[in-house]
Amino acid sequence: MSMIRTLVITTDLEAKYDVALKEIRKKEVLWYWVDFYKATEDEIRLLGKFFHFHPLSIEDCVENVERPKIDFYDSYMFVVLHGIHQQTLEPEELDLFVNEKGIVTFHKNAIRDLNNIWLRIKKDDSLKKGPMKIMHQLTDKLVDDFFPPVYHLEDLLNQIEENNKNKSINELMKELFSIRSQLSKIRRTIIPMRDLMYRIISSNRLNEMKEEDLYFYDVYDHLLKLVEMTEANRELAADIRDSYLSYNSNRMNTIMMTLTVISSIFMPLTFIAGIYGMNFEYMPELKMKYGYYIVLGVMALIGTGMLYIFYKMGWFRFHKGPKL
Amino acid sequence: MSMIRTLVITTDLEAKYDVALKEIRKKEVLWYWVDFYKATEDEIRLLGKFFHFHPLSIEDCVENVERPKIDFYDSYMFVVLHGIHQQTLEPEELDLFVNEKGIVTFHKNAIRDLNNIWLRIKKDDSLKKGPMKIMHQLTDKLVDDFFPPVYHLEDLLNQIEENNKNKSINELMKELFSIRSQLSKIRRTIIPMRDLMYRIISSNRLNEMKEEDLYFYDVYDHLLKLVEMTEANRELAADIRDSYLSYNSNRMNTIMMTLTVISSIFMPLTFIAGIYGMNFEYMPELKMKYGYYIVLGVMALIGTGMLYIFYKMGWFRFHKGPKL
Amino acid sequence: MSMIRTLVITTDLEAKYDVALKEIRKKEVLWYWVDFYKATEDEIRLLGKFFHFHPLSIEDCVENVERPKIDFYDSYMFVVLHGIHQQTLEPEELDLFVNEKGIVTFHKNAIRDLNNIWLRIKKDDSLKKGPMKIMHQLTDKLVDDFFPPVYHLEDLLNQIEENNKNKSINELMKELFSIRSQLSKIRRTIIPMRDLMYRIISSNRLNEMKEEDLYFYDVYDHLLKLVEMTEANRELAADIRDSYLSYNSNRMNTIMMTLTVISSIFMPLTFIAGIYGMNFEYMPELKMKYGYYIVLGVMALIGTGMLYIFYKMGWFRFHKGPKL
Amino acid sequence: MSMIRTLVITTDLEAKYDVALKEIRKKEVLWYWVDFYKATEDEIRLLGKFFHFHPLSIEDCVENVERPKIDFYDSYMFVVLHGIHQQTLEPEELDLFVNEKGIVTFHKNAIRDLNNIWLRIKKDDSLKKGPMKIMHQLTDKLVDDFFPPVYHLEDLLNQIEENNKNKSINELMKELFSIRSQLSKIRRTIIPMRDLMYRIISSNRLNEMKEEDLYFYDVYDHLLKLVEMTEANRELAADIRDSYLSYNSNRMNTIMMTLTVISSIFMPLTFIAGIYGMNFEYMPELKMKYGYYIVLGVMALIGTGMLYIFYKMGWFRFHKGPKL
Amino acid sequence: MSMIRTLVITTDLEAKYDVALKEIRKKEVLWYWVDFYKATEDEIRLLGKFFHFHPLSIEDCVENVERPKIDFYDSYMFVVLHGIHQQTLEPEELDLFVNEKGIVTFHKNAIRDLNNIWLRIKKDDSLKKGPMKIMHQLTDKLVDDFFPPVYHLEDLLNQIEENNKNKSINELMKELFSIRSQLSKIRRTIIPMRDLMYRIISSNRLNEMKEEDLYFYDVYDHLLKLVEMTEANRELAADIRDSYLSYNSNRMNTIMMTLTVISSIFMPLTFIAGIYGMNFEYMPELKMKYGYYIVLGVMALIGTGMLYIFYKMGWFRFHKGPKL
Ligand SMILES: [Mg+2]
Ligand SMILES: [Mg+2]
Ligand SMILES: [Mg+2]
Ligand SMILES: [Mg+2]
Ligand SMILES: [Mg+2]
Ligand SMILES: [Mg+2]
Ligand SMILES: [Mg+2]
Ligand SMILES: [Mg+2]
Ligand SMILES: [Mg+2]
Ligand SMILES: [Mg+2]
Ligand SMILES: [Mg+2]
Ligand SMILES: [Mg+2]
Ligand SMILES: [Mg+2]
Ligand SMILES: [Mg+2]
Ligand SMILES: [Mg+2]
Ligand SMILES: [Mg+2]
Ligand SMILES: [Mg+2]
Ligand SMILES: [Mg+2]
Ligand SMILES: [Mg+2]
Ligand SMILES: [Mg+2]
Ligand SMILES: [Mg+2]
Ligand SMILES: [Mg+2]
Ligand SMILES: [Mg+2]
Ligand SMILES: [Mg+2]
Ligand SMILES: [Mg+2]
Ligand SMILES: [Mg+2]
Ligand SMILES: [Mg+2]
Ligand SMILES: [Mg+2]
Ligand SMILES: [Mg+2]
Ligand SMILES: [Mg+2]
Ligand SMILES: [Mg+2]
Repeated sequence: MSMIRTLVITTDLEAKYDVALKEIRKKEVLWYWVDFYKATEDEIRLLGKFFHFHPLSIEDCVENVERPKIDFYDSYMFVVLHGIHQQTLEPEELDLFVNEKGIVTFHKNAIRDLNNIWLRIKKDDSLKKGPMKIMHQLTDKLVDDFFPPVYHLEDLLNQIEENNKNKSINELMKELFSIRSQLSKIRRTIIPMRDLMYRIISSNRLNEMKEEDLYFYDVYDHLLKLVEMTEANRELAADIRDSYLSYNSNRMNTIMMTLTVISSIFMPLTFIAGIYGMNFEYMPELKMKYGYYIVLGVMALIGTGMLYIFYKMGWFRFHKGPKL
Repeated sequence: MSMIRTLVITTDLEAKYDVALKEIRKKEVLWYWVDFYKATEDEIRLLGKFFHFHPLSIEDCVENVERPKIDFYDSYMFVVLHGIHQQTLEPEELDLFVNEKGIVTFHKNAIRDLNNIWLRIKKDDSLKKGPMKIMHQLTDKLVDDFFPPVYHLEDLLNQIEENNKNKSINELMKELFSIRSQLSKIRRTIIPMRDLMYRIISSNRLNEMKEEDLYFYDVYDHLLKLVEMTEANRELAADIRDSYLSYNSNRMNTIMMTLTVISSIFMPLTFIAGIYGMNFEYMPELKMKYGYYIVLGVMALIGTGMLYIFYKMGWFRFHKGPKL
Repeated sequence: MSMIRTLVITTDLEAKYDVALKEIRKKEVLWYWVDFYKATEDEIRLLGKFFHFHPLSIEDCVENVERPKIDFYDSYMFVVLHGIHQQTLEPEELDLFVNEKGIVTFHKNAIRDLNNIWLRIKKDDSLKKGPMKIMHQLTDKLVDDFFPPVYHLEDLLNQIEENNKNKSINELMKELFSIRSQLSKIRRTIIPMRDLMYRIISSNRLNEMKEEDLYFYDVYDHLLKLVEMTEANRELAADIRDSYLSYNSNRMNTIMMTLTVISSIFMPLTFIAGIYGMNFEYMPELKMKYGYYIVLGVMALIGTGMLYIFYKMGWFRFHKGPKL
Repeated sequence: MSMIRTLVITTDLEAKYDVALKEIRKKEVLWYWVDFYKATEDEIRLLGKFFHFHPLSIEDCVENVERPKIDFYDSYMFVVLHGIHQQTLEPEELDLFVNEKGIVTFHKNAIRDLNNIWLRIKKDDSLKKGPMKIMHQLTDKLVDDFFPPVYHLEDLLNQIEENNKNKSINELMKELFSIRSQLSKIRRTIIPMRDLMYRIISSNRLNEMKEEDLYFYDVYDHLLKLVEMTEANRELAADIRDSYLSYNSNRMNTIMMTLTVISSIFMPLTFIAGIYGMNFEYMPELKMKYGYYIVLGVMALIGTGMLYIFYKMGWFRFHKGPKL
Repeated sequence: MSMIRTLVITTDLEAKYDVALKEIRKKEVLWYWVDFYKATEDEIRLLGKFFHFHPLSIEDCVENVERPKIDFYDSYMFVVLHGIHQQTLEPEELDLFVNEKGIVTFHKNAIRDLNNIWLRIKKDDSLKKGPMKIMHQLTDKLVDDFFPPVYHLEDLLNQIEENNKNKSINELMKELFSIRSQLSKIRRTIIPMRDLMYRIISSNRLNEMKEEDLYFYDVYDHLLKLVEMTEANRELAADIRDSYLSYNSNRMNTIMMTLTVISSIFMPLTFIAGIYGMNFEYMPELKMKYGYYIVLGVMALIGTGMLYIFYKMGWFRFHKGPKL
């Protein structure tokens, strides 16, 4: 399923698709775009033999652990961009080799945005400006695709805060955990992308193309916004978790108080009943005419006395908060 | 309900309202102010066609996700300001296009401060100085409006700390959570505004207008103060929450100790009573003359012994804190 | 109770108190000091009319929300200093307008240090050097007054750590909370003062007065020390709180274990006693000669068996910590 | 087991192993590599006497507490690199003295990567470029060896999150603790290595060798990635721990509620049964024909009443989370 | 017990001890070292009268609150160093006045390292280089003395982690608290020392003595290492504390489950036994031949039913952790 596609813009601003690789250096070619998708070993070798790219940048193409970055080589720049998979939130790498004469894109996953631009170029003259325009368009679209997952997680968080579906705390906590770790995952892709964009804007090497700077600044704005959104949502998730924990701690208090009050009242009473349930032959109280009523009276006294003590100790107001 | 309003200051320092749009470029116009409110598609198109603003800045007008920022274009600067809605605490966007010849304001919500300045300009000569003065006034008023919500939240926090209304811990905790998240919301608007103001003050492009710098520095001061206030209040909220949690944890201890002491005393006693309540035919103790009194004596001994053990283990002093 | 005081140093280095305001610009005046205390509206207007200070700096005098800061105007500098009220720990504002010819001080609270310097100037020739010397002396004294409250809070923290008065954990926790929030309050005044002092030292505008720099560096040192002390104490307070919480959590464990062991032993035994307390007519065990002794034996077995199980499960060593 | 090995590259690019030490300064030697492994006191003295290295750098060789670093001396640079032991995760020190004429390596542990390069140099012409190439190769390989332990810990964390082996929370917590402290250990080696690499790239002294810069930038990229991975995993470990704790807190709530509900229902009932189990001679209820059934009815009423109260208080829905 | 000691190095590199103070300015003196130990008021006055040091630096000598720092005066530099008391971990101040002609040391505590250098100077020619060499030696030795306490605390932490002595959690927690606060104490001395060393290395004023720079860089390395060690150990202490807390929380769960299971089984059973222990005259069940056995059967049913319910609710597996 590997694929190398070519596209050239001729000096009379026409877009020709699928020309032979060696024709891209012809005189009438204004600039070219070559796209490597799931390249085979043989095709990868072209990067060195045909395009003469530096071994270090070719290595970075093949490896997967790279962070977004830009490296300036003598005759081209090498850029690693990271998009995001809409479901798994995993970073998706897109490698670019760019100079004034052409752009080479290299990727292992199908990238919808790249295909759209590839096809649109025919009709859209603004895209024919040159390789930097393509690089900007790719970056812009990849970054736009960060928003839907972040908005989705933000919505989930708000649902948890409302809890309209009456979920149990345990479920809410699991969801919170999952949202937090997804936000962390996204942030790990966004932050290096933001730093990359900052380097692109502030780079001297790119100073000649001042007009482009403006466009990359626009992308940078979006990344700043994204970083702020993920941070704010991570913070909100932590606050919600803390609130649930404190809610739980209060429930526990109410429960324990109920248990303690009931035990403290009935244990002594049951003990007294137990005493007069003993079968000793000689127990004078049992013979007293009003013994039973006296014991009942004592029990009532102990019960209300207990309640009074708890009341005085402030237990029944104990769900009230203190002054600090 | 959309609206475009115009206002021009003539060379003889008169303010004329509602002139036709094309008249604002006339010779006798010193500078102009055009205000777009809830602009329609058609009206938005004027930004490009009539004012020749850059597509990127027009896009930022129409979009809502923008952070406060300043962009310098060749013949004007584009500024996004964020005020705050006094009830919802949501950011309210106000976009400005400013150069020496005029200011264009663009907003989707009614902004009271803007209307006031718009009307005051007739009588107040200091406002006729030029577009930068208007920009400063708008910024100054928007920032002044951040204070009331922050003061309000500060008051709520102090009430929680006092707890004069004897609210339950659960209610206090919910309020704390809500205050914290409102403070976070405000902070997310204040911090980018502070960064924007810093960029305005330190920008080289704005250096020519040294006098204005002083005024924006004044606004920057207020924003620094606001950032400090929100940080301090967020910290206070966290401290209050921690205090309540530790208060709860101590209550739990007292409650559990009460339960344990009472259970530990009465369970063995009730067990003994149970033994002599058994109906075995041959139980010699039951026949002893002083059996009942002996058992009562043993019970008293066990009870006081238990209390003594707990006392020795330091439980009754257990609400005392340790030396660290 | 409002007051304007004047003081001039003449060219022959004499200090004259309470001269008329217009005389401070006379030739034989080397430099002057005018002090506004609880100024009335009329007196405030003098700042503009007589001294020609910029409206922005006058506004900062009248407002109370200002942070410590220094603003450089064309012919003077405006400085806002914050001292600290020894009891309430609230910041106390002192505003200064300083140039080579004089110093104007403006404050709403009586400031003891200011009075002392005002009176000492007569006898102390080193104070006659000029307005910058006065500014340094005021700063130095205000900063010296930060130390007593910080030392006091440090002492309180050490007392909490020792807990010689055998206070309850609840009381200790409340005191910790109060100390922490007082430290935060002080820090909110100290940190902007430190930043102000740093700006004074590193300012180019003040470079001419290299000798003074040395003196402000001395004040800066004290502020650095103060920041470190408050940070260290806040950290210590948090550590103490965490220690108490973990102490509490261990107590709870011991208490719950006691309850559980006792319940687990006596509940089954009481149940057995209850069985043989039932009044069924046909219960063969009750008629057995050694029934009672057999049941007692079974109970002893169950009791010791329970203890053995708990012992085997390691509960009695359970206050031992684990290997990690 | 100590060892000094020599290797020279001659001007005709041949690699000669094990030449005598004094021959490395001969004319036909392009550059040399001397490797000290577990050097004896005598051998260490050679660093000063034969190579004339500065005493400070020799001291750093012998000591073990050094952090990764680079020191520039007049005629050479001294570099301390840290690799990582694959099992213990302890840092393994490798010291380098490098100039254009040669490289001296010094280490106390066998370093596999170093041996591989030492042997490969014969066949691999790219390694014959010079000492800087060797230094890059050593750094590159040492840094590559950081990845396996980090990936291993990442896998362990994911296993804990899945908990497919049904481990107890206590076991999971111990493993979490151990993983976190191993990640901290690795991070303490990685971060100074990253800072060292940054210093190498940005150093002016190394500017002449621009080509090498590119290679060290590649290593720097890997270190940035490693730092991000360890940070992300440490954060994940903390999130997992918090999730388990909140899970535990919820379990506790369910357990306590069960206990309280059961106690609150049966304690009053048992008390009533106890009352009518008393042996008073005069207890009129006992004689009533339907007394038994009335008491049973009252008991049923109390039991269902209790359940109803708990239901009304929301306890049975109490595992539901609140709206915040 | 106060003491002023003098030491001069003559132009022929001889060290003469205890010369008269005024002789140190003689021609044949290359440079001098004067040491003030527990200086009296009179002796302190010499700093101003004889050495002409600036009042600010003299004030810093006498005060004790100073942080480590370096101040450059016109003809000398003033340095405050902090060593550490090996037992109390309190900072010990050593003040230096240094220029090319001499060094004046001032301290209130006996400093062993200083005495050693003072005595060694006679035999060790490398120490005769000049005042900067002495300053380096003092700094180097003071910093070396930071290591033993940090290593000691690190060992204590490892012992706590192992807990071979089977200490209780409470004891371990107290020790953790004490270690953490001792680490904080040390860190508060180390960090300003590191910042001071950085200032010394990067200072322009000290640029002339490039050779010395190398030596101070060596000290700086040690301080960086120390900062990293204290940070790492503080982090480890926090991790251990969190682990113990989670261990405690799990214990609590097991204990509460045991209590709840036992209570939930025996409370209903005991209640049933209580019912048939009542003394009503008309209770038909009591008369049934197999009544007793039926009740025993019902009890067995209820007991196993309860166990089955708890089993189904997963309580007996409840020590298993969840999937997240
Ligand atoms: Mg790649
Ligand atoms: Mg976009
Ligand atoms: Mg866009
Ligand atoms: Mg997950
Ligand atoms: Mg960045
Ligand atoms: Mg935009
Ligand atoms: Mg928190
Ligand atoms: Mg907009
Ligand atoms: Mg304002
Ligand atoms: Mg204002
Ligand atoms: Mg909310
Ligand atoms: Mg900022
Ligand atoms: Mg102001
Ligand atoms: Mg003021
Ligand atoms: Mg002072
Ligand atoms: Mg002083
Ligand atoms: Mg308070
Ligand atoms: Mg600062
Ligand atoms: Mg001082
Ligand atoms: Mg070494
Ligand atoms: Mg590598
Ligand atoms: Mg590599
Ligand atoms: Mg470990
Ligand atoms: Mg760094
Ligand atoms: Mg690479
Ligand atoms: Mg001193
Ligand atoms: Mg040393
Ligand atoms: Mg040394
Ligand atoms: Mg202590
Ligand atoms: Mg520093
Ligand atoms: Mg060293």
